Amino acid sequence: MAKLKLDISMSLDGYVAGPEPTLEDPLGAGGEQLHEWAFALKAFREPHGLEGGDEGPDSELMEEAIRSTGATIMGRKMFSGGSGPWEDDPNADGWWGNDPPFKHAVFVLTHHPRETVVKEGGTTFTFVTDGIESALEKAREAAGDLDVAIGGGAEAAQQYLDAGLLDEVQIHLVPVLLGGGVRLFGKTGGGRPKLESTRVVEGGGVTHLGYRVVK
Amino acid sequence: MAKLKLDISMSLDGYVAGPEPTLEDPLGAGGEQLHEWAFALKAFREPHGLEGGDEGPDSELMEEAIRSTGATIMGRKMFSGGSGPWEDDPNADGWWGNDPPFKHAVFVLTHHPRETVVKEGGTTFTFVTDGIESALEKAREAAGDLDVAIGGGAEAAQQYLDAGLLDEVQIHLVPVLLGGGVRLFGKTGGGRPKLESTRVVEGGGVTHLGYRVVK
Repeated sequence: MAKLKLDISMSLDGYVAGPEPTLEDPLGAGGEQLHEWAFALKAFREPHGLEGGDEGPDSELMEEAIRSTGATIMGRKMFSGGSGPWEDDPNADGWWGNDPPFKHAVFVLTHHPRETVVKEGGTTFTFVTDGIESALEKAREAAGDLDVAIGGGAEAAQQYLDAGLLDEVQIHLVPVLLGGGVRLFGKTGGGRPKLESTRVVEGGGVTHLGYRVVK
Repeated sequence: MAKLKLDISMSLDGYVAGPEPTLEDPLGAGGEQLHEWAFALKAFREPHGLEGGDEGPDSELMEEAIRSTGATIMGRKMFSGGSGPWEDDPNADGWWGNDPPFKHAVFVLTHHPRETVVKEGGTTFTFVTDGIESALEKAREAAGDLDVAIGGGAEAAQQYLDAGLLDEVQIHLVPVLLGGGVRLFGKTGGGRPKLESTRVVEGGGVTHLGYRVVK
């Protein structure tokens, strides 16, 4: 069965987004620092239609993640930054224009039903209103022999983590201190998965920490 | 001038001690998991008068830290687990008996004055009541050409971090989720140092992340 994996950038003080996110600054104050390591990479730039970029261990690691992913699940906030009914969402078409970088089926967790959106290049956005397990089932079916990735944001990641549904977690640890925002591991008393380190890759300005969730 | 360095074990969710510490369980619930990697090492066991232990990268790293340290600063809680006047502290002699593992001058941050205690093997405990900068000055003098280490606990570490006095931070990241307790990086709005990754060492059940504080 397709593995469910989470790849997420985290600050050294445990935040996956900065404080006070807005539509203009969806990652919150200082949050863009978490992703700078990725923006510079060839493996990131290419699917986003940008030229050039750094190669090397970070880029290889990202290529590997992209290559092994056959479907993505994301939260509504990650998709558009909005909430509530779609007709009131100023960014209802998502962040990625007509040719999004995914090139596979994306399942968006939402409380508001909506028809599937078919984009160019193989990306589809299917809106799932009956919960995280249903989204996972649909994503596994779409992924075939490949893995399912949690595309973010923090809340969607936490929900799958807390429900014990993740198989692998890869944390891209960035040596910045945000001092506030959204923590990946924020909850007390919830089910806390047992993790086993599988590998550590030292990158440029980021350390990639791979974990397997022990079931 | 002697460098001020912090070596501290942290859970993946950012805690350096578990919730509800007691005198019997000073590291809080689950907190001992943060230090298991160290307890098994030859470099830890030897100065504690214990035989055997694992050698290898983790032990070498700890040996290196011990060898380069000429003085230690610690908080009162780290020293005895208590607070308030010394005569009311049931553990006023500290945790380590007559021959503590430090073998050098230790400066204990406290609000309650007390004469210096001289132990066997070169360890002295000097009680500093006039603040963290004064303790650092005394420790630097005692360390000579070697470094000064913050021996814990979390509060002392945070105070030096927030005051911008640390030169190096080494985090021993342990893949457990404590779900509560004392965070190393807990404060919002305070001065947040800029860190630069200096090295990553993958150990057994722990990843050692070295950072330099950019001044």
